[in-house]
Amino acid sequence: MGRVSAAQAAELLKGADDVLILMHKSPDGDTVGSGSALLRALLSLGKRARAECSDPIPRAFPNLLPEGTEEFSPKFVVSVDIADTTLFGEKIAPWADRVDLCIDHHPSNRDYAKNLLLEDDSAATCEIIFKVILELGVSITKEIADCLYTGIATDTGCFKYSNTTARSHRMAAQLIECGCEFQKINERVFDTISRQKMALEQDALKTLEFHCDDRCAMLTLTREMLTRNGAAEEDMEGISSLPRQIEGVWVGITLKENKERTGYKISMRTTEQVDASLACSKLGGGGHKRAAGCMIPGDAKNAREKILAALSDQL
Amino acid sequence: MGRVSAAQAAELLKGADDVLILMHKSPDGDTVGSGSALLRALLSLGKRARAECSDPIPRAFPNLLPEGTEEFSPKFVVSVDIADTTLFGEKIAPWADRVDLCIDHHPSNRDYAKNLLLEDDSAATCEIIFKVILELGVSITKEIADCLYTGIATDTGCFKYSNTTARSHRMAAQLIECGCEFQKINERVFDTISRQKMALEQDALKTLEFHCDDRCAMLTLTREMLTRNGAAEEDMEGISSLPRQIEGVWVGITLKENKERTGYKISMRTTEQVDASLACSKLGGGGHKRAAGCMIPGDAKNAREKILAALSDQL
Repeated sequence: MGRVSAAQAAELLKGADDVLILMHKSPDGDTVGSGSALLRALLSLGKRARAECSDPIPRAFPNLLPEGTEEFSPKFVVSVDIADTTLFGEKIAPWADRVDLCIDHHPSNRDYAKNLLLEDDSAATCEIIFKVILELGVSITKEIADCLYTGIATDTGCFKYSNTTARSHRMAAQLIECGCEFQKINERVFDTISRQKMALEQDALKTLEFHCDDRCAMLTLTREMLTRNGAAEEDMEGISSLPRQIEGVWVGITLKENKERTGYKISMRTTEQVDASLACSKLGGGGHKRAAGCMIPGDAKNAREKILAALSDQL
Repeated sequence: MGRVSAAQAAELLKGADDVLILMHKSPDGDTVGSGSALLRALLSLGKRARAECSDPIPRAFPNLLPEGTEEFSPKFVVSVDIADTTLFGEKIAPWADRVDLCIDHHPSNRDYAKNLLLEDDSAATCEIIFKVILELGVSITKEIADCLYTGIATDTGCFKYSNTTARSHRMAAQLIECGCEFQKINERVFDTISRQKMALEQDALKTLEFHCDDRCAMLTLTREMLTRNGAAEEDMEGISSLPRQIEGVWVGITLKENKERTGYKISMRTTEQVDASLACSKLGGGGHKRAAGCMIPGDAKNAREKILAALSDQL
């Protein structure tokens, strides 16, 4: 409702105590890094504080989240990296209409908090938290640096994606100087794959097919493959980017069977030659120009035909 | 022979004309980026100059190397990112004892040039070239920025590896501000795979085996796999890092059959628990603590046994 600056957000936090920090469900490196860094900063100021998330923190981000203060009844609630209260998840849902401060970088933020610190030109919420922590007068310890680096590195694909800015790099430089163990963090986040996920990938790649003079590559992931490889839902992530990475491919498509086995979730990634959002919107979906999606009921064969038809004017 | 600073190297270049720039064989992003950036800078100063490499420039680095000046007889020879004249390759070998200036970041540099600008705390030679170009008084165009970013990004694994420093990030920030198309560069270098390489990876992963309570993972690449998948020698690169990426694996080993089919080239990658160099030195090889190699004559079964024996005290 009210927009605040990083300095104003820091003032609010300075005046607050018994602070509850909320992270979004299916937590990623940016929400965990933001929540953990802010919690560490508030604890170092002698405040009572803790952080909560509806889902467990993924193994890829160990040692970021410190022990919070034990039982207390929150007087000030901050959400970090949460664009919408629908992303709170079951456990923290009761706080949805009692958020005092939201710190976020998503342009889609629904403005649900009393005070909103939104900087949508930031690659990660951790970039904004960095500023807030400096405004709080807290020095960046090695532990805080690890948290902030994690958020910036994960949201930028290790400085690879187009959302990376000169500021992202300058912050990374400062965090390295504060002693953050960037190599360990990157190894865990980007260079670690479970045996189940590797097996699932192998299985999925067997379904790889090419269309439209090899400009279009398609992969299919079924529920049966998940079961067969002992893989989890989250192991399907990341695989969506594989088909588009093949040299010469303009449109990479991944078909993922839904839980109910009644249809396929389509994820489309394109090079600049093709508008993914345009193609997916024809099938009731949407997204960005180079990454979009839609849902197609029925079997995989039907889904593949529908997608190729939706792409026919562009390929 | 004589060590020079970046400023002194720039002075030498200012006084030179008809400059030949040499890049190493099997060129990577750093030698191509360094050579191309320096060539662009010298041409912008109105000098005659060209760059040469014994091998073709890989497709992953298009548009970096500009057209050099046509025929001229070089009066000043600069090598970039070349630690040893054995890395010149056939075409540029004749210049091996006539190098006026070598600009490099490898600690192993053999000091073969009349003047050596060596900064071995730089993640990439492009970081040093960046300084030299500024000393030359040349402004960093978008094209030069693309070259320098390519070298820094490739040699640091997109800012992931331990050689990355705060300076690498600050330079990347400056290059982004100079307009470099980092996303395009990264997409080409890190997120593009040929169909042949993907097929080869698939094939290799079928040979994946685990030893020592799953702490050790091994992959085998044979000549027959290369032929079967229409893959090239260079497609074997990168695959070496796969086995170590599997969660819980301390030692990842890739066995690559040599061209003569008389033995296997072993590449070993480890986590901090295991010393790869120690294990490989027992087999007549060597390297670093976390990445080492050796050559084992005979068949793959023999090689696997020898490696496991060499690792037995550490696993």
